[in-house]
Amino acid sequence: MILVVSLNPALDVTHHVAGVDWSGVNRPHEVAAAPGGKGLNVARTLRALGGDVRVAGLAGGVTGEAVRAGLAEAGVPGTFTPIAGETRRTFAVVDQHRHDTALFNEPGPTVAGGEYDEFLVLYEKSLGGCAAVVLSGSLPPGVPQDAYAGLAARAAAAAVPVVLDAGGPALRHGAAGGPAIAKPNLAELAAAVGRPLAGLAAAAGAAAELRAAGARAVVVTLGGDGLLAVTGDGAWRAAPPAQTAGNPTGAGDAVVAGLAHGLVLGRPWPERLRHAAALGAAAAAAPAAGQFAAADYRRALAGTQVTEWQDG
Amino acid sequence: MILVVSLNPALDVTHHVAGVDWSGVNRPHEVAAAPGGKGLNVARTLRALGGDVRVAGLAGGVTGEAVRAGLAEAGVPGTFTPIAGETRRTFAVVDQHRHDTALFNEPGPTVAGGEYDEFLVLYEKSLGGCAAVVLSGSLPPGVPQDAYAGLAARAAAAAVPVVLDAGGPALRHGAAGGPAIAKPNLAELAAAVGRPLAGLAAAAGAAAELRAAGARAVVVTLGGDGLLAVTGDGAWRAAPPAQTAGNPTGAGDAVVAGLAHGLVLGRPWPERLRHAAALGAAAAAAPAAGQFAAADYRRALAGTQVTEWQDG
Repeated sequence: MILVVSLNPALDVTHHVAGVDWSGVNRPHEVAAAPGGKGLNVARTLRALGGDVRVAGLAGGVTGEAVRAGLAEAGVPGTFTPIAGETRRTFAVVDQHRHDTALFNEPGPTVAGGEYDEFLVLYEKSLGGCAAVVLSGSLPPGVPQDAYAGLAARAAAAAVPVVLDAGGPALRHGAAGGPAIAKPNLAELAAAVGRPLAGLAAAAGAAAELRAAGARAVVVTLGGDGLLAVTGDGAWRAAPPAQTAGNPTGAGDAVVAGLAHGLVLGRPWPERLRHAAALGAAAAAAPAAGQFAAADYRRALAGTQVTEWQDG
Repeated sequence: MILVVSLNPALDVTHHVAGVDWSGVNRPHEVAAAPGGKGLNVARTLRALGGDVRVAGLAGGVTGEAVRAGLAEAGVPGTFTPIAGETRRTFAVVDQHRHDTALFNEPGPTVAGGEYDEFLVLYEKSLGGCAAVVLSGSLPPGVPQDAYAGLAARAAAAAVPVVLDAGGPALRHGAAGGPAIAKPNLAELAAAVGRPLAGLAAAAGAAAELRAAGARAVVVTLGGDGLLAVTGDGAWRAAPPAQTAGNPTGAGDAVVAGLAHGLVLGRPWPERLRHAAALGAAAAAAPAAGQFAAADYRRALAGTQVTEWQDG
């Protein structure tokens, strides 16, 4: 079983509007609401791959109830430690005339120390039957910035490998917990090492630094250009076929799901990366995060090239 | 007790953003969520006036739960008949740099016939202890377009006067139920009689038609220009002092609350209109619908002129 940790889940509300009036009253012709946040997108993708997946997280208020209910409806079992604060919403306005999307992300509730301690008890118990843990997404206010380091260290103590997907301080601290794979995008990697990264060689150098800080492998997502992986067994580039414009959030989460799935299946790195990059490409083409079409996945898998990468 | 009917309540979510990126990711620095929909705004204003008020309506899903909880928190008792559909949200994005607000109003859940029948049983029971009924706001899909006519007729049979605030077919049909007061704005009145209305004389003529159709008095809101009332006792204009730009939804709902309050207190028409217009002006100056500052109300009351109105 793969345990996906989602400390700051969200209810993603999407309004489809034909020609938005940004200073007036709009009547969306289509409204969708689904559980979101990066962790839940990863969990749904793993579920769609046929993986045995379970979510552990924090949820509160009626929005937390909506997240619980929506996840159960999607067939993903989850245990959320109750919190007094109200789980956040994200609100997307899709303008179908201008092909433009505006996103409004609420910050998330403040979590009390005792609430996070309760979550830790649940998390430790869940590690028993785990093949891998995925730590993904932002930390809500009140959860310590080095929380992912603690969760990764607890998993390492139970001999459970961790896939870490986070940015900023959560990534920097998290690497110290010794995750099997850290997956930043280029901007997150640059923020973690504290300098701009121009070109693949600079990215590979920064990935090596993250490995020196504790991560056993680093997979960098490069948007439409695929992946760069720096591991103890070597370094690789995975390039998917030419992409259409798509959903970048969904793509990154699908790569994480692909990496966790390949890790649990014991796929060698080149094959693991080929699947992860293809899943990312298929998810970028899907309308909502956490979804992909099986035909797109198969097509991308056939078209993805994995090559050994050498500096210079 | 004044019974306020709210068949299509909403959870009003407001995001305050400093400089919106309409094609990117925004992080609102302030998020508010409160029960809304016109009926609930009227109920909160009546509560703030010290009125004995109760809400009856339809609510479903976790958003319905949020509406129930928020209303109880505001000190307004309410009974909502449960429905299988999910109560709607409205989203307001307030751009604090451009002083612009974009509103996104979800359509509301489809109500099943049996659910509306259950509501009718609750409504009939509630009429016993009623001094007045307020019928306010849109009808959700599935509720018959002449629902307000039926509710008004039932109230009339129980000798309970009705204040009707609706637009379009709901207003046209509702007038036939014999409400004590119908309160359209100018656009709603024009839609009800099926022609544009230029000038006060045209509005008074259309109001007289609505009276002929069954409404015993018609009070037309004229935005910042106050009210025009056509009643069996005469016709009046109520003009509040010069206004600052404000919240037009809140203003109309406050006028309805003022009219219902004055009706129950037995205030003569000129005094009733003076209070209603002043409440509207005070509510227009408040940041959110259903609110007003007592000092603004007192000031507007002193400055509002009520004059008899005569055609020509």
